[in-house]
Amino acid sequence: MPNRRAVFYVSDRTGITAEALGNSLLTQFDAFEFKKTTIPFVDSMEAADRTVAHINATAASEQHRPIVISSIVDEAISARIRECNARVLDFFQVFIAPLEQELGVKSAHAAGRSHGLRNSQEYFSRIEAINFTLAHDDGQSTKELGRAQVILVGVSRCGKTPTSLYLGLQCGIRCANFPLTPDDFERGALPDSLLPYRDKLFGLTIASDRLQAIRQERRPDSTYSSAEQCRREVQAAERLMEDANVPMLNTSTKSIEELATTILLQRGLDRHIF
Amino acid sequence: MPNRRAVFYVSDRTGITAEALGNSLLTQFDAFEFKKTTIPFVDSMEAADRTVAHINATAASEQHRPIVISSIVDEAISARIRECNARVLDFFQVFIAPLEQELGVKSAHAAGRSHGLRNSQEYFSRIEAINFTLAHDDGQSTKELGRAQVILVGVSRCGKTPTSLYLGLQCGIRCANFPLTPDDFERGALPDSLLPYRDKLFGLTIASDRLQAIRQERRPDSTYSSAEQCRREVQAAERLMEDANVPMLNTSTKSIEELATTILLQRGLDRHIF
Repeated sequence: MPNRRAVFYVSDRTGITAEALGNSLLTQFDAFEFKKTTIPFVDSMEAADRTVAHINATAASEQHRPIVISSIVDEAISARIRECNARVLDFFQVFIAPLEQELGVKSAHAAGRSHGLRNSQEYFSRIEAINFTLAHDDGQSTKELGRAQVILVGVSRCGKTPTSLYLGLQCGIRCANFPLTPDDFERGALPDSLLPYRDKLFGLTIASDRLQAIRQERRPDSTYSSAEQCRREVQAAERLMEDANVPMLNTSTKSIEELATTILLQRGLDRHIF
Repeated sequence: MPNRRAVFYVSDRTGITAEALGNSLLTQFDAFEFKKTTIPFVDSMEAADRTVAHINATAASEQHRPIVISSIVDEAISARIRECNARVLDFFQVFIAPLEQELGVKSAHAAGRSHGLRNSQEYFSRIEAINFTLAHDDGQSTKELGRAQVILVGVSRCGKTPTSLYLGLQCGIRCANFPLTPDDFERGALPDSLLPYRDKLFGLTIASDRLQAIRQERRPDSTYSSAEQCRREVQAAERLMEDANVPMLNTSTKSIEELATTILLQRGLDRHIF
């Protein structure tokens, strides 16, 4: 396997940023098969020594030296990691110098400031957004809908719940979601409880064949998952949302991250970054 | 405000990785107040022109030029962004060259591979993890507990739900969670339904004063949120988990990301990165 490479994500904290960065780079090299390992919490010389030993053992057993994508704030620990038998790219070390130069000061060089618990206020507002979003999933509650920052609407299984949870958990946004059902289509109108909050509504729609595939996983060979039912519901929901001037986004080919980012952008909401 | 700086996160996709990277760097400069703006989906020369105009307008109105942390795969668009009146750090451009050199090939230079919808299989398994986690939140269901990869236990409001949702949504892990209640403490044993899955259990605990603050937000001045009740429940839960040899983690000073990373590490589970 000449195109196989071991990749290590090494971080003094969770490694989440190193993983995200590394994955976005590695997806550019289609022809390779990357065997990825994340080593978090490398925040002491002992942990650094263990990590180097681990990487070197892999290097000895592979045809090519590994790639290490790291984020280590402490200079001594970073220097120790760089001694391993691998190509080491440390984004913290690469970017901190130009930032220090631009800002005209030395950085704190203190680990644990990213993806850590910065303050109680921030934690409470994140937890509140999660609780609000959970309590208002799938039209469960119309209480306090006025406090929602976004209310997603669309047919069952078009992607409302994952998008709402992402907005709550990862963006700190209070997001409710409401299903549009055959009842609403017969009446030809949005659910009454949503009418006072028109400016918060955001519609999700989906290609009917994709909807069918998703519903089929859930309730195989039911009316609910039939091609005809899916096609009808999608058409009726789109007509309802168009008539009510609800902005609409098609979820068929978009990731949860892309949907959330687009909704926030169109609604002019800032995501809170944790 | 000599220490105020405008920061732009510019990306051809969602900007999530640029934000994560930028935030982890900027937290190192405590003395500054950063005014952050994310500009996602800069995937055409027209969008690049608009972005440069936006950044230049900010530069003209501020004492110092802005900082731009970007992730742009297309070289022409990246070059256009770099012409703006700001200090531009593009992590894609900085890291792609050494990776190409190490791997001995040119990269695809194709945008949209990160945080995009890569394939249906991956999407379905993420959705399945989310659905499983939601269905098994707060002991709601004991059905299919055998399919859980982790089962979190602990007193009410110790952090089980946010941690479970994070594991489901962001790591693709099927995570159930179960409350430990005064009933269990009286019996002095774990809930019966959990006994077959001892090796999947992971305990969360919390400092009792922090638990009290969290419960106080939820049900002010109740028995549930009293100092005495919180202290008793935490003590009893810790004793129960110790007796049952359930590994335990204190959530008081840890972020959701740190908790999830630690649990996966201790359980030997790989997170799936989306």
